[in-house]
Amino acid sequence: MGPVYLDYNASTPLDPRVVDAMLPWLRDGAGNPSSRHVWGRQARDAVETARRHVADLLGCDPDEIVFTSSGSEANNHAIKGTAWARREAGRHLVVSAVEHPAVAEPAAWLAREGWRVTTVAVDADGRLDPDAVRRTIGSDTVLVSVMLANNETGVLQPVAAIAERLRPRQAWLHSDCAQAAGKVPVRVREIGLDLASLAGHKLYAPKGVGALYVRRGLQLENLVHGAGHEAGRRAGTEAVALVVAFGEACRLAAENLAEESQRLAGLRDDLAARLRALAPGVVVHGERVPRLPNTLSIAFPGRRALAVLAALEDRLAASPGAACHGADGRVSGVLAAMGVSAEIARATMRLTVGRFTTVAEVARAADMLRAALDQPDRADGD
Amino acid sequence: MGPVYLDYNASTPLDPRVVDAMLPWLRDGAGNPSSRHVWGRQARDAVETARRHVADLLGCDPDEIVFTSSGSEANNHAIKGTAWARREAGRHLVVSAVEHPAVAEPAAWLAREGWRVTTVAVDADGRLDPDAVRRTIGSDTVLVSVMLANNETGVLQPVAAIAERLRPRQAWLHSDCAQAAGKVPVRVREIGLDLASLAGHKLYAPKGVGALYVRRGLQLENLVHGAGHEAGRRAGTEAVALVVAFGEACRLAAENLAEESQRLAGLRDDLAARLRALAPGVVVHGERVPRLPNTLSIAFPGRRALAVLAALEDRLAASPGAACHGADGRVSGVLAAMGVSAEIARATMRLTVGRFTTVAEVARAADMLRAALDQPDRADGD
Repeated sequence: MGPVYLDYNASTPLDPRVVDAMLPWLRDGAGNPSSRHVWGRQARDAVETARRHVADLLGCDPDEIVFTSSGSEANNHAIKGTAWARREAGRHLVVSAVEHPAVAEPAAWLAREGWRVTTVAVDADGRLDPDAVRRTIGSDTVLVSVMLANNETGVLQPVAAIAERLRPRQAWLHSDCAQAAGKVPVRVREIGLDLASLAGHKLYAPKGVGALYVRRGLQLENLVHGAGHEAGRRAGTEAVALVVAFGEACRLAAENLAEESQRLAGLRDDLAARLRALAPGVVVHGERVPRLPNTLSIAFPGRRALAVLAALEDRLAASPGAACHGADGRVSGVLAAMGVSAEIARATMRLTVGRFTTVAEVARAADMLRAALDQPDRADGD
Repeated sequence: MGPVYLDYNASTPLDPRVVDAMLPWLRDGAGNPSSRHVWGRQARDAVETARRHVADLLGCDPDEIVFTSSGSEANNHAIKGTAWARREAGRHLVVSAVEHPAVAEPAAWLAREGWRVTTVAVDADGRLDPDAVRRTIGSDTVLVSVMLANNETGVLQPVAAIAERLRPRQAWLHSDCAQAAGKVPVRVREIGLDLASLAGHKLYAPKGVGALYVRRGLQLENLVHGAGHEAGRRAGTEAVALVVAFGEACRLAAENLAEESQRLAGLRDDLAARLRALAPGVVVHGERVPRLPNTLSIAFPGRRALAVLAALEDRLAASPGAACHGADGRVSGVLAAMGVSAEIARATMRLTVGRFTTVAEVARAADMLRAALDQPDRADGD
């Protein structure tokens, strides 16, 4: 029996069709998209086709897409780029209490640089109250940043409702959509977003590419200054092969989003049902509110998720808290913000299914977890 | 007869061995290097092996290498990161007049933000005088940034001599080594550098990856804030496949640098000799001073390089000025800084050979250029 990968929120494998799409650009794609000759032109055309695919997934126009190297860069660009560009209009930012560090840390840095940053709390289900967000807005608020879906719990934020509350105001609305894209519809105009971040490697494209949606007409300051790539918005020779891969990944994600979303929810719910039966008092975070179809954040009271997963580390991929930054074993800030006790937080693991997860794998993962939970926690696991 | 690619300074094709090294990470590498499970551990090990290869090429230690998404990002990180981290020590920066926009533009942005920026002129050969650099240094100078090799002319700057002049002072020394690495030795300790930037796609690795050398002990501010990747210095999930490719490219570059450097110079000099014979008064920029072995910046007086190259655009890849940012046909700032007349600048093209260039290709390129020069310039070429 092979190992089982249930860590899709940490990083997805590449879709083989994405690999096929990018391979010609690795094997033969010498051209710099800024060059005038045919090699350059072909590279430029490939980048622009990819830009259309990304725009189609988000329901915007291609010229509203800026390619970046990651979701983190997109978030930094959105937040600092807005703060720098709008500092004459005001120096107040609003973020939620459950943002990814790639949003929380740029905001914290701006706070050290003299901006005022308000953090809006979430309820026990991990949700923001749109009216609570509205109440933080002042005449000096230039940006509100609220993620569409939480990376740890999968909980969806009422971002469209927040957009409505902001409507007569000057604050721009940014959303980190890295976890949501490809799992649920992300239509930036329908939601009412000004800025949105995507990450390739949460979407079956390689690590090292992302995108920022910038609503037409908004002028951000650049994060990376230099030559005039990306219509002057982001310096650095376009990463043609990666961008092509990301475009293809967005095209594939859009293709059958609704069916795939349903299939993922079925797998996730099957897994949850199997795991609930394993121990008394099992807690599933966020289960009372809308959340991503693929994400199961589940606690086995009295156990340490780190230790349980360490016992399976060569056979089952899953995360204690968020894999991006949970390696030091600190209690998850997201769960703490939801008022989850330290004991339950330590007992929580995140199991996330994806495009290549099968019913058989879910059953096998449940079996492995049952066996691990039958053993006492190893001392070295925490 | 196939087309000929002589635009290696704009972007190199990938070395097939680099493609082979990265492919397993595209096909099977799901793991996030921050994850604790075996998938994560394997990804982390691959990133650290690549880091050793980059460090070996530069003659430094692996923990002094920060992976970035490009040379532009590395330059922005070095310059802004130093300025932000050292603003209490002083707000004065020094750059050369021939820097790539990825250095010149971050410096220009800092100037708009209240830093003082001094630009040091070059002589008619495109070289800086180390003593002229020294004379710009004051007690508030925190950074000097001088490229090792110019992207347009290939001219090498006396960076080691500049480092010596800075020695008893507090200013850090950064060098954009993107064009130099892999063509001439770049040993950061021997040169005396504090910071150095590399770009993968100038070195037979893909577009979308770069690195910044940060001498041990220096504390920069981050450019991209977020989770604790790259020892807390650069947020964003490590682009494993790209980083592996870049590491392999550095390993290959180090393997036979001296022989390859000599071979490239032979090809370049052969090309120069053939082209000199084509027209009277041909000018080769930088030929009296040390320059990259692969770069030929050559002017055919009375002609427009854009028009000549446009006539060949499907058969010969070369650049009028620098391909990264020359698409609008403006006269090169590098040549202007050398005191080259606008007429000669417009007559200048950059032909750059590389690892896959053959003697036969050089002959064919010369034949094509002879044929193009025999025709009058097309009106649409400029």
